[in-house]
Formats: sequence, structure tokens, C-alpha cells
Amino acid sequence: MPLVECVPNFSEGRRPEIVDRIVAAAESVRGVKSIDRSMDASHNRAVVTLVGEGELVAEAVFRAMKQARDSIDLNHHTGEHPRIGATDVVPFVPLEGATMGLCIRLAHRLGERVGRELAIPVFFYEQAALRPERKNLPDVRNIGWEKLRDAVKTDPARTPDEGPKNALHPTAGATVIGARPFLIAFNVNLKSTDVAVAKEIAKKIREKDGGLPGIKAMGFFLDDLKLAQVSMNVCDFRATGLDRVYDEIEKLARTKGVEIHESELVGLAPKAALGDSTAQHVRLRDFDPKKQIIEALL
Amino acid sequence: MPLVECVPNFSEGRRPEIVDRIVAAAESVRGVKSIDRSMDASHNRAVVTLVGEGELVAEAVFRAMKQARDSIDLNHHTGEHPRIGATDVVPFVPLEGATMGLCIRLAHRLGERVGRELAIPVFFYEQAALRPERKNLPDVRNIGWEKLRDAVKTDPARTPDEGPKNALHPTAGATVIGARPFLIAFNVNLKSTDVAVAKEIAKKIREKDGGLPGIKAMGFFLDDLKLAQVSMNVCDFRATGLDRVYDEIEKLARTKGVEIHESELVGLAPKAALGDSTAQHVRLRDFDPKKQIIEALL
Repeated sequence: MPLVECVPNFSEGRRPEIVDRIVAAAESVRGVKSIDRSMDASHNRAVVTLVGEGELVAEAVFRAMKQARDSIDLNHHTGEHPRIGATDVVPFVPLEGATMGLCIRLAHRLGERVGRELAIPVFFYEQAALRPERKNLPDVRNIGWEKLRDAVKTDPARTPDEGPKNALHPTAGATVIGARPFLIAFNVNLKSTDVAVAKEIAKKIREKDGGLPGIKAMGFFLDDLKLAQVSMNVCDFRATGLDRVYDEIEKLARTKGVEIHESELVGLAPKAALGDSTAQHVRLRDFDPKKQIIEALL
Repeated sequence: MPLVECVPNFSEGRRPEIVDRIVAAAESVRGVKSIDRSMDASHNRAVVTLVGEGELVAEAVFRAMKQARDSIDLNHHTGEHPRIGATDVVPFVPLEGATMGLCIRLAHRLGERVGRELAIPVFFYEQAALRPERKNLPDVRNIGWEKLRDAVKTDPARTPDEGPKNALHPTAGATVIGARPFLIAFNVNLKSTDVAVAKEIAKKIREKDGGLPGIKAMGFFLDDLKLAQVSMNVCDFRATGLDRVYDEIEKLARTKGVEIHESELVGLAPKAALGDSTAQHVRLRDFDPKKQIIEALL
């Protein structure tokens, strides 16, 4: 059974009862579990993590989006985070037994349905993007819903991929739907208090500065542990896995005479990202497969 | 306008009039060009290259598949190449302005339509695969149509992704539809007659033996030029481009005291694979953008 994760973002971070309703709508699909939920009042935004068999997850997200459309009115919405819709972003993520092709198909089909049945315009992003300039989420979303409302009427570059072509939904705006690999939050702590070493390593390994594919990295000083840390998002673990990025950090640290203390996983990782020996190899602290491997939660 | 290439393979390599009819059906869609065609009698197989705007190419391929269904009977088919259908394999390939996401969507939609309107079962492969074990084309196709006919009835691992689930089409079999990057045939000729050097370099750079992503490579001796050649398929030029693979070959050759003579492109390459300075950098012989860049042919 191909398992899929979906992490819809909703433009509601202040009224828990609304988020409850949205999550309840999703969980009304049997076989779909909501394994995490976070709300942020200043961003006025909620992020929900749903897991289950692909088609079922898509059905659950559709119900959640319908509920969001009926309970959130962007005309009365304020918050710091850029947004274009009541349901703002919907990424599908392949887990065990699922391909990226399946997630792209789920994204495209959900987009068609949302356009048709909910009258919400849809843009496809990341690996589901139909236009190269829509691959990058901020390029699609950061315009904000107020400006997008006009832009869809006048700018062909802003024409939605699905749903109404010339007008946003009057209260629910538009939505960005896509597919991407699982994003792993992974930190490596150095046996050093020198944050400059961590910053230099971060700069060398991050993709943006010519480093490893899919790696975002920053250097920090951890007050509680009195250690320097390389903090990362591993955005495409099949391109650059935990072992690989760990080895690279170890190599770079050694050139500075610095050893590695340990690494840590923040939140969950998919089974495929943690081979038999990975946790040991990367000195993962307090690793508990039953709690940290997403497929094990189901 | 997003341009797409499609390279359908048909199980007919002996009767040119049949292939003519199939190509004519494709070309009946205005805006779609057939830019290449090859027939192989011993493999009993024809390969057609269609180019145009994505949706139009998908329509053209559908018409070609319908014609193939009506003109090819696998019960009377012999040939050395493994095959499962009258239209055997249909890869969509992104060109200028097109994303892989678009090609995956075209593949999925064509698959649905072929299943519904032509009553031909469809398997999705490569980046359009819905199951991990279907990514690799030979794993889907090499069973051959005679055995697949029984397997779809009894083996859940062989259940088609679209169309009739339990029976192949009685004369047209089944079809594999998918999406993949443009495949570039690229050779580097060494200033050396020592084929062992070419073979060693090939082994070091090919993905299969732990080399560069998407690179298939072999070493040959060219009788006419009296040179050793590293002959390659660059299967994912965004993962490993021509510059990169050339630089790696140059580096490896130098460790053997061997210089590079020139490189050659066999057939076409997409615009995105040849940056402004690439042809010069890789010493491409007789490079003519008007004849070798696929988008320039349209």
C-alpha cells in the first residue's frame, strides 16, 4: 500500500475551533491519520500533517479544503506570513511504497477537483509545476492574495492552472498544490564552541552556495549545550542523504581540528532516509525508530 | 508555449506503409511535427519522434496509437525485441518551457484516455510510475506480451495502472507510458589509440559503477579515426551536464597522460543542455545549432 504524507497549510492560526473543524473534516476519511498540527498566531497560520494511503489522503485533504473554504474569510484575515488562500499550500510527499509520480498525480487530480467543485483557482508548484517559473513556491505565493486578485485578471503569467481562470474565490482566494520529497530537519553538533566553524561549514555544504544538492544550512551557537551547531534542512534525501552530508561535515570540521559531538533529528524522517546503519553512522542522539520514523506511526 | 518531445515505439518494423499510416495519423494534428523515424526489421520495431506543444503532442500520440491498434496484430508479430504492445512504449520528454511535471501529467492523462477509449491496459513508468517497481522500463516490459496476457489475470504485481485490469487488448496488447529527461548521445574522443584507457574512464564515470548520476558509458576503439572513444548516454542532463562529464573525463584522462581530441553529439540535444559556452568547452566537432538543437527544428 503506497503511503503518502500531505502537509496542508491553512490561513488560520488564532481560532483553534476552526482548525479543529478542518482536521475533523480530514479525519472523517477512514485510514487517514492527522499526526501533527501546529498553529502560529502571529503568522495566523496552521500546518497539519496527514498520513495514509495516497487516494485516501487526497480525499481527506479535499474535505479539509472544503471546510477551510467555508470557515476562513481572507477579507478578515491579517498575519505576517505571505498567503494567497484559505488553504494556502498543499504539498504531497511520497513515503514507503509511493513514487513521486504518484504524488504528482494526486496533486494534479486534487487540483482539478478543487477547481471544479470548490471554485477555487489552483496553481501547481515544485515537482507538480506545469510551468518552470512556478516550481519555486515563493514565486507563486509571495505576491499575496490582495495583489493576486487583480493580477489573475490582467497578467497571463498569473493565470491559474486549474479552476476559475480570471477571478479568485471571493473569500477563500486561491491555492498552491504540489509534490516534493520529504523534508528532514537534521542538525550536527560540533565539539567546539566556535560558531565561526559551524557557519563556515554551513556555507560550504549548502546548495545555494554551490554545495550539496537539496541542502539548506546555517551555523548556530547552542547556549544550553555550549556547542556550535550546523543546522540543516535536507530537502531531497535521495539526492543527498544523511550519511553523505554528515561525512562532508566531518571532513570539513577535521580540517579545522574539530570533532563531531552528535547529530539530531528534529521531528520525523521517512524510513527510506534511515538505512540500517545510518543512525549509528551519524551519531544520532536518542534515536527512537518507533517515534521518529513516520511510517512507524501508522 | 511549452514544447514537448514524444518518442513512441511501435511493434512494426517491416511494413513501411503501416508506419506511414501511423505517422500520418500523428501529423494530422496541426502544430505537431514528426522530426525523425527509424525502422528496424529484425527487431520489427519503429521509433517515431514527435515534437510540438504538449497538449497537441498528446493528441497526436493518441491518434497514432489508435492507428497502431487497428493495423498491428501482435498475434502475427515476430521480432527479437521484447514488447508488450502494438504501441509498446511512449515517453514524454520536456523541451523548452516545459516541466517534468507537465510531461508526467500528459502521460497520466493519455494513459487514462487510452485505457478508456482504446480499451488498452496501460502501465506508467520512469518518472510517471505510480509504483516504485515500475520505474525501470525493462522491469515492466521484458516479460513480453505472451506471458503478460496470463500474468494480468493472476498476478496483482502485473495489474495495469489504467484501462482493462484483467485482460490485454486481444490484438494490441498493452502499453507503457511515461516521462523522462531528454536522452543525449554524447561521445568524447581521446588523443590515444589505447582502448583500455577509454574503458577505464567509462567504468569510472558511469552511474552503475558508482560514477555520475544519469551517465551510461562504454569504451570503444574507432577504426576510422584510429582513436579511443568514451561513448555515452547522458540520461539526465540536469543532474550531470555535458560540461561536467567532459571535465571528469578530461581529469581522468590526464592522470593517464592522455589529452582529449574532440567530442561529438549523436543526433539532437535540447537547448537547455547546451549553454552559451558548452559547445566550445567540450570541443564539440562540427556543431550546428540549427541542425542539432531540437527546438531550432520547429
